[in-house]
Amino acid sequence: MTVTPSSPGALTRLFGTRLPVVQAGMVWVSGGKLAAAASNAGALGLVGAGSMKPDLLKHHLELAKSLTSKPFGINLPLLYSGIDEQVKVALDAGVRIFFTSAGSPKKLTAFLKSHGCTVVHVTSSPDLAKKCEDAGCDAVVAEGFEAGGHNGRDEITTLVLIPQVVDAVKIPVIAAGGIADGRAIAAALALGASGVQIGTRFAATVESSAHDNFKNAIINSKPDSTFLMMKQLVPVRLLKNTFYEEIKALEARCAPSEEIAAHLGKGRAKSGMLDGDLTNGELEIGQVCAAVRDIPSCAELVARLEKEYSAAVAHLHPKL
Amino acid sequence: MTVTPSSPGALTRLFGTRLPVVQAGMVWVSGGKLAAAASNAGALGLVGAGSMKPDLLKHHLELAKSLTSKPFGINLPLLYSGIDEQVKVALDAGVRIFFTSAGSPKKLTAFLKSHGCTVVHVTSSPDLAKKCEDAGCDAVVAEGFEAGGHNGRDEITTLVLIPQVVDAVKIPVIAAGGIADGRAIAAALALGASGVQIGTRFAATVESSAHDNFKNAIINSKPDSTFLMMKQLVPVRLLKNTFYEEIKALEARCAPSEEIAAHLGKGRAKSGMLDGDLTNGELEIGQVCAAVRDIPSCAELVARLEKEYSAAVAHLHPKL
Repeated sequence: MTVTPSSPGALTRLFGTRLPVVQAGMVWVSGGKLAAAASNAGALGLVGAGSMKPDLLKHHLELAKSLTSKPFGINLPLLYSGIDEQVKVALDAGVRIFFTSAGSPKKLTAFLKSHGCTVVHVTSSPDLAKKCEDAGCDAVVAEGFEAGGHNGRDEITTLVLIPQVVDAVKIPVIAAGGIADGRAIAAALALGASGVQIGTRFAATVESSAHDNFKNAIINSKPDSTFLMMKQLVPVRLLKNTFYEEIKALEARCAPSEEIAAHLGKGRAKSGMLDGDLTNGELEIGQVCAAVRDIPSCAELVARLEKEYSAAVAHLHPKL
Repeated sequence: MTVTPSSPGALTRLFGTRLPVVQAGMVWVSGGKLAAAASNAGALGLVGAGSMKPDLLKHHLELAKSLTSKPFGINLPLLYSGIDEQVKVALDAGVRIFFTSAGSPKKLTAFLKSHGCTVVHVTSSPDLAKKCEDAGCDAVVAEGFEAGGHNGRDEITTLVLIPQVVDAVKIPVIAAGGIADGRAIAAALALGASGVQIGTRFAATVESSAHDNFKNAIINSKPDSTFLMMKQLVPVRLLKNTFYEEIKALEARCAPSEEIAAHLGKGRAKSGMLDGDLTNGELEIGQVCAAVRDIPSCAELVARLEKEYSAAVAHLHPKL
């Protein structure tokens, strides 16, 4: 079969993986252990560099290398300071697959390509996807409103976003946001995506570095347990808890951005997701959390996704 | 092939249609002409009764009957007064397919079933879908955040909602919100839906009763042209225009609900969608509008959807 940009084969060739599935980089959740386990299972594992100082990033990259011989990459949000050091650490550790996000695709793409890297940028709109292509990216992640953590301002959902991005660019499109089972993978590929990026479902795995409290909060969540908050700062999808209620109250009385930023303070994401403070921590998770009901190993999870995908496709009639 | 609740066959049997596709009932947009054209093309056409006084509803039902011998139905939002009269008019006109929305499924389901009707209720959450099943509904429409017009409060997207509703109920699930082409129909069926309800794409057809100005605004819209507004009243997805900007300004300063309701006033939806006032009218449309680029007849549209669906399914590999 011919490999076109919209075939899954385009991604497995690009990344050297068995499957067109990416384990999303997630702050405090996707360390070297999760990335290696995802890669060993046939997906592309990503170390979430966003929350890591250079020494910690180096530790996680070395850990991943010690646990897998398969390709893995990093996710690098461009909104933090210290990006140049993170890039140096990653290149020195031999990483050649970079997912960049939360900034301009022009910032690092040419530099990374000149070092022989594969570069994928995360986008939340068809226009930005075109800019990624123009900047030389090898692929884009198109991430919808239902995704956890930081989110786009236009609130375009995955179902609406994917076909429009697929029609806007020639490079492969990786669908993200709301994908936690094989049915949703089949849906994403039917929309024209070449593959998927999965976050929330991988956050509740044995190898995820999320605190057990956070993993348990995910598997006990309900369909309405998340909401997109802090739109005056950077929109972020949160699991509802006391901290969420406090932000909601501030927003309901139109508190100024400075007051919301001050209440957020520093270190809330770490205290929530890594240290397990479910009351005052910032719990970033996708809307699809209510479909996550157990904590399997990555190997079990990926085998399940493959099985569910095949069942979903087999169920489709060739004619409407 | 066995017909299970999640097969398209379950819906075509229930409605007596050729295709598992429903043309959504839309205030001021889906009169008898559109419903008949959608039904003639093989879908289930719905007359949107929400905006109609009994005499006007009777006129549109007689018009639909004069234009098609195929089954069609009505959509009845339960939040308006005068429901009992609308129901009487519809039953007297021989309508036996009712889609109810914006209220409790307990309100009319038993009564309508006792008159031999097929009853489908519109839901935006898995919990409400279960209540629809318990109330005796024959099917549910599960409608996501990306849908146009009135919307749920939990902001659950179609991609996240459908699998959870499919897992929650045994009756057939009709996916709605964000579906404008055959790729999205294939995606919805991959998620486990038995069929789809399509609004925005049918609003921009030859037979839609939307004003030409509104149809042209749809086909010239951008991916970020809609937003979910008026959450203090009933959340509604609007096409951005002067009226939207005014509501946005009121919301940005936390204006009280009464002030927003007063600014909305009466008759804005009619002036926008039927009379074509693109400045001060209320333009209800789905987020997927940017994927709608022409104004075909219903027959042309449905033929295209069928072709796109088959192409999307043929493109899927049986294994991930």
